[in-house]
Amino acid sequence: MAVVSQQRIRLGMIGGGEGAFIGAVHRHAAALDGQTELVCGAFSRDADNNQRTGASLGLAPERVYDSWQQLLEQEAALPAEQRMQLLVIVTPNQLHVPISIAALQAGFHVFSEKPAGVTLSETERLHEVLVASGLLYGLAHTYLGYPMVWQARELVSRGELGVLRKVYVEYPQGWLTDNLEAQQAKQASWRTDPAQAGSSGCMADIGTHAFGLAEFISGQRITKLCAELATHITGRRLDDDGAALFKTDGGASGVLIASQVCAGEENALKIRLYGSKGGLEWQQMEPNTLVLRPHGAPVQLLRAGKGQAGLTDEALKRCRLPAGHPEGYLEAMANLYRDFATAIRRAEQGTPAGVPGISAGLRGMAFIETVTQSSTSSEKWLDVPVTA
Amino acid sequence: MAVVSQQRIRLGMIGGGEGAFIGAVHRHAAALDGQTELVCGAFSRDADNNQRTGASLGLAPERVYDSWQQLLEQEAALPAEQRMQLLVIVTPNQLHVPISIAALQAGFHVFSEKPAGVTLSETERLHEVLVASGLLYGLAHTYLGYPMVWQARELVSRGELGVLRKVYVEYPQGWLTDNLEAQQAKQASWRTDPAQAGSSGCMADIGTHAFGLAEFISGQRITKLCAELATHITGRRLDDDGAALFKTDGGASGVLIASQVCAGEENALKIRLYGSKGGLEWQQMEPNTLVLRPHGAPVQLLRAGKGQAGLTDEALKRCRLPAGHPEGYLEAMANLYRDFATAIRRAEQGTPAGVPGISAGLRGMAFIETVTQSSTSSEKWLDVPVTA
Amino acid sequence: MAVVSQQRIRLGMIGGGEGAFIGAVHRHAAALDGQTELVCGAFSRDADNNQRTGASLGLAPERVYDSWQQLLEQEAALPAEQRMQLLVIVTPNQLHVPISIAALQAGFHVFSEKPAGVTLSETERLHEVLVASGLLYGLAHTYLGYPMVWQARELVSRGELGVLRKVYVEYPQGWLTDNLEAQQAKQASWRTDPAQAGSSGCMADIGTHAFGLAEFISGQRITKLCAELATHITGRRLDDDGAALFKTDGGASGVLIASQVCAGEENALKIRLYGSKGGLEWQQMEPNTLVLRPHGAPVQLLRAGKGQAGLTDEALKRCRLPAGHPEGYLEAMANLYRDFATAIRRAEQGTPAGVPGISAGLRGMAFIETVTQSSTSSEKWLDVPVTA
Amino acid sequence: MAVVSQQRIRLGMIGGGEGAFIGAVHRHAAALDGQTELVCGAFSRDADNNQRTGASLGLAPERVYDSWQQLLEQEAALPAEQRMQLLVIVTPNQLHVPISIAALQAGFHVFSEKPAGVTLSETERLHEVLVASGLLYGLAHTYLGYPMVWQARELVSRGELGVLRKVYVEYPQGWLTDNLEAQQAKQASWRTDPAQAGSSGCMADIGTHAFGLAEFISGQRITKLCAELATHITGRRLDDDGAALFKTDGGASGVLIASQVCAGEENALKIRLYGSKGGLEWQQMEPNTLVLRPHGAPVQLLRAGKGQAGLTDEALKRCRLPAGHPEGYLEAMANLYRDFATAIRRAEQGTPAGVPGISAGLRGMAFIETVTQSSTSSEKWLDVPVTA
Repeated sequence: MAVVSQQRIRLGMIGGGEGAFIGAVHRHAAALDGQTELVCGAFSRDADNNQRTGASLGLAPERVYDSWQQLLEQEAALPAEQRMQLLVIVTPNQLHVPISIAALQAGFHVFSEKPAGVTLSETERLHEVLVASGLLYGLAHTYLGYPMVWQARELVSRGELGVLRKVYVEYPQGWLTDNLEAQQAKQASWRTDPAQAGSSGCMADIGTHAFGLAEFISGQRITKLCAELATHITGRRLDDDGAALFKTDGGASGVLIASQVCAGEENALKIRLYGSKGGLEWQQMEPNTLVLRPHGAPVQLLRAGKGQAGLTDEALKRCRLPAGHPEGYLEAMANLYRDFATAIRRAEQGTPAGVPGISAGLRGMAFIETVTQSSTSSEKWLDVPVTA
Repeated sequence: MAVVSQQRIRLGMIGGGEGAFIGAVHRHAAALDGQTELVCGAFSRDADNNQRTGASLGLAPERVYDSWQQLLEQEAALPAEQRMQLLVIVTPNQLHVPISIAALQAGFHVFSEKPAGVTLSETERLHEVLVASGLLYGLAHTYLGYPMVWQARELVSRGELGVLRKVYVEYPQGWLTDNLEAQQAKQASWRTDPAQAGSSGCMADIGTHAFGLAEFISGQRITKLCAELATHITGRRLDDDGAALFKTDGGASGVLIASQVCAGEENALKIRLYGSKGGLEWQQMEPNTLVLRPHGAPVQLLRAGKGQAGLTDEALKRCRLPAGHPEGYLEAMANLYRDFATAIRRAEQGTPAGVPGISAGLRGMAFIETVTQSSTSSEKWLDVPVTA
Repeated sequence: MAVVSQQRIRLGMIGGGEGAFIGAVHRHAAALDGQTELVCGAFSRDADNNQRTGASLGLAPERVYDSWQQLLEQEAALPAEQRMQLLVIVTPNQLHVPISIAALQAGFHVFSEKPAGVTLSETERLHEVLVASGLLYGLAHTYLGYPMVWQARELVSRGELGVLRKVYVEYPQGWLTDNLEAQQAKQASWRTDPAQAGSSGCMADIGTHAFGLAEFISGQRITKLCAELATHITGRRLDDDGAALFKTDGGASGVLIASQVCAGEENALKIRLYGSKGGLEWQQMEPNTLVLRPHGAPVQLLRAGKGQAGLTDEALKRCRLPAGHPEGYLEAMANLYRDFATAIRRAEQGTPAGVPGISAGLRGMAFIETVTQSSTSSEKWLDVPVTA
Repeated sequence: MAVVSQQRIRLGMIGGGEGAFIGAVHRHAAALDGQTELVCGAFSRDADNNQRTGASLGLAPERVYDSWQQLLEQEAALPAEQRMQLLVIVTPNQLHVPISIAALQAGFHVFSEKPAGVTLSETERLHEVLVASGLLYGLAHTYLGYPMVWQARELVSRGELGVLRKVYVEYPQGWLTDNLEAQQAKQASWRTDPAQAGSSGCMADIGTHAFGLAEFISGQRITKLCAELATHITGRRLDDDGAALFKTDGGASGVLIASQVCAGEENALKIRLYGSKGGLEWQQMEPNTLVLRPHGAPVQLLRAGKGQAGLTDEALKRCRLPAGHPEGYLEAMANLYRDFATAIRRAEQGTPAGVPGISAGLRGMAFIETVTQSSTSSEKWLDVPVTA
């Protein structure tokens, strides 16, 4: 038996210094399966923060860079077996596309936080660069890493719900109930700043998750919507709340709710779908259960778990533990990393396999632009642009 | 000590023969507290059904009438101490107003199933007759009989949530997932027949509950809405599904969902409200718990129960049992009957107190008309008419 | 078609004056279906309380009696078509057997609160009197009125769980966490007084419910137990807490927990059963759901509801409303009354059918005596007496 | 500012080859925080399995050893800066003590799966060796890594529940409902084999978790117990089920349930504690919520989460993510690894801090021996030995 030792994929990271939220999430998730290794970073424009972060992560000092530009340049100059393979972008939104494009052009795969960019048009440019590069681009739609989200998608796809009629998706949070940005809270500040977040706050931050989840599980595209956004805090510069009625290309209709002023709510992303033969419900805060409601028969609780009977292959391969050992948010994100590591290995072996990313990124930008336009329009229904 | 024996209020009923749903609910609920007594009825236009129903209820045969007209006429001719005092109307919608008006004109108090009528204008006529009569008119908004609905209303009213920002109310059911009316199912048939139900199916049947609950708990009026209704079953003649974005006169906004094609759902009426200081959640299927989410503090589960600390007077007086002994739908309806019996006694003692009814009835009709108009309008926002 | 008007069964009540708990429960429950009518009572030894209670219930003053002896004597002297048919006993425990025996001997059916008595031997005397009388004796095991308890029993009986292995039943309450009896709280005072409650407090009050539920659903008899009771409040005279390991005649084993010092708990009676093919769980505070756990397949939530697919006949006939309209504790008790009314009618028509009562009563007394003996025994296992 | 790069702690592993369960759990958990690195292992006595496992983990072939003896010998011979620092033992129980002792004697810290051994006396020998070695010994009580378990312990310790009265702990699983060992299922085979598992199956495997959790949260020691174990499968050689009544040195009493034949249950470890001022409830399958039931006030849901108000320091430092992003079993185990890595660094810096382990290990062995003895004893109460 030939035993080949498995090489870890080498990661670099832009953003994610002390005080950031999602950078550490990516690092935990990337580490979980032991398939990647963080080798370099430019974590903060604050030099001290940057150095401290790098050191605490055990990085060699020479690979903690002053800027993302420097990182790309110097890593590209390293020998192939040393240099970063995949760049993780965990900056505020306005840098997502510029860094992604530069990284692809420098020859690196990219894993970007969502939304993909701040406008649909810049994201379309990214798409062109990506296609030309032949490299891989992933988008951190963490919730699409949960096994039961894949199970739900598969149940819908194989017709367990019959003809799909309704999709209700909601993402209530409460953390922006107060004017945190006036208190210099870092997470709140950039997310409510148009220069960093783009044209939308709540819809860009979490509305895109709800939208992406609805399209992913339903297997349908949202083609029309009618939305109303709001800003509940005096002085806040972007929407912190909104809702939309929508219709899909498959004949279903639904409602999308996203809000960051639902006081007392944590991260209560939830989706329900109903068809002629039954319904489904999944909640992010209890991610290992998928509620199946067959029409005319008792509700069933489908449970995530390694080796669990009745789960689809795609769900099973995203479970590490037997049912009853809860897996959570980091494991979902880790699934994205594991898939990405596998895709890079395949690419290197000449049998490329994609990772989901640019398509969802374009959809998300189309959503953000339509939902913000709809909110100020007197027309009832607006078309969501068709994307590549 | 002078002990005065309590007389039972004498009820008559129109509708509610075998095969009906809500008539038996009213009879159980009216009986629960021993404060009323059914003395007469015209239960069905089918003579056999009518007689069988009356007999099974232990009514004297001479007080089981062939028609509602006959009932009103002959009861009015009985001596005061024998004749019906309160008429319960549990017919399809199109008869609600005509019978209500005739009953009031014949000198009887009225307790009507909702919606109050089939048009706003006929309901306004009913309002005029009612005012002229000096009698009492109640509307069977059963869910407003639950103690924790009153608790929620009071918590909002006294500012526990701060400035109200969001109201989400939803009422998904699944029982019309199939074309039941084609199978002659009685409950489905009349509810989907414009001649009996009026201009709306789902919105008249359950949308009005959601709407009424939202206005009741929030203490605000919905002033604008943007709706989309749908009919998912080929051949069905009225809406079986819909949703609306809305705004209130108190500066809040929200979403209302009502659907009868959510396969696998039972009667999942749920409301959530969020303000600057916290949130509230109540679900009809777990009615004895009110979830309070104070901003920045742990979630609290407020529980219904006789003598329960922390409950308001209005909530407490709607509890018969200590916490942990579940009370349900019949008890909620029974609370409406107990209140009505008390109001009649007071009226007879010359210290009249109202029962809720016509105001909610007018609001419900304004809702139905606006939501159906909005669904076919290309304008985004329609005004909900101001009612008396 | 011959239409026969249905006569209401005439009830009398001993106990249940102002300040009592369970008397009002019985009156609500008895009234709910309109099949019974309260005609007389001796509600309290306090004459004012007694008169006020009778008047508030609309009783004729001459049928509000000074004592239970007077009630039996004078009712027996009334014409058959007027006199009480069924006596409801809602006094403290020590009167259950004396009144039951006297009532049966006076020719009345009896519906008694549990436990049946204060000793097994007096309850065996009651059994003899009952058999000799040819009358009906029911015991208020309210929880056995819930539809899903019957569903559970039937699922076990037809082998859905395979060979039964484990039964866990628990009844934690918190209401005796403080020394309420020192504060003259009526409910606490008699329940902790050996002269009124008998030899056990917690076990007699709620342990018997847990025990009875376990035997009812499992269809097996508990033959051996090993128990430890405790009294957590200084000065309290009876147990307020306990637990027992047990074995059944069907080869299963289990645990019974009953406590009234579980601070913060309401009425959390819960039972779980496991066999070679699956498990079941039912909770009194969410009584309309029965959790079925088939081995190797997803959990199913079976729901109570009129016409609900998959329910057994016995469960269905205990549902008044479609699924989603919660029914609760009063409806469960009402089911006992409806069954009793039916049994009395059949008895009068010469086709007698029993009501459950004396057998469960004897079992409960055997349990109380064994569990209290075991608690002070150094022997591990004690036999639970075999009862008739 | 001096920036010191953090070195990873070097781990070795005995056991955990393909087909094992817990080895991979340890590897994921150890990797999650990037504070450790697996450098060597002896994963299986099957040479192919051993090599494949090592290679798939990216280990250098020369550090994949044929036996645990070889691993200890050859690692000890490596230069200090290369050699393993901490040995992880994930073998069947009978090897825990022999390997632990040998590893400590060879100069390595030890992190062992539970139970600590197969007898109390061998575990006492381990204790002596440990004390003599001056090294660290940790025990994989994974559930003690959950933040809300620490929160619960702290709430009890600071008197939020008042005087503790009751502790109920239960651990129902269903995976041994069938005779899996007869089907050569690896996990089932060794756990039901006395030569590998020791004198107990279910109690050693999961009863110890329940016992340890009860002592950890209550802060009290269980001093007496009365137990009944059972084996429900013909041919099975060890207990697969049991329950015990118990008493603590702090005056509380309780019940412990552990079973592996509760068909349909996953990993439903749950603990409830009640005192004179309130109750607490925690469930492993919903680990981020701690239910607090203050006596006479509404239930509160305390939630895990980084920065969450109201959490104690010990709970907070075990949270990586804000509330609403579920953390689970791997994160709990990762907390044990993070603590162990910190303890090793401190030890190396001359400021030693312990890790929990040997004390819990001794307690667990005392429990296993007492519970198995009690099961066959006719005496009601047995003393649980006092341990170091």
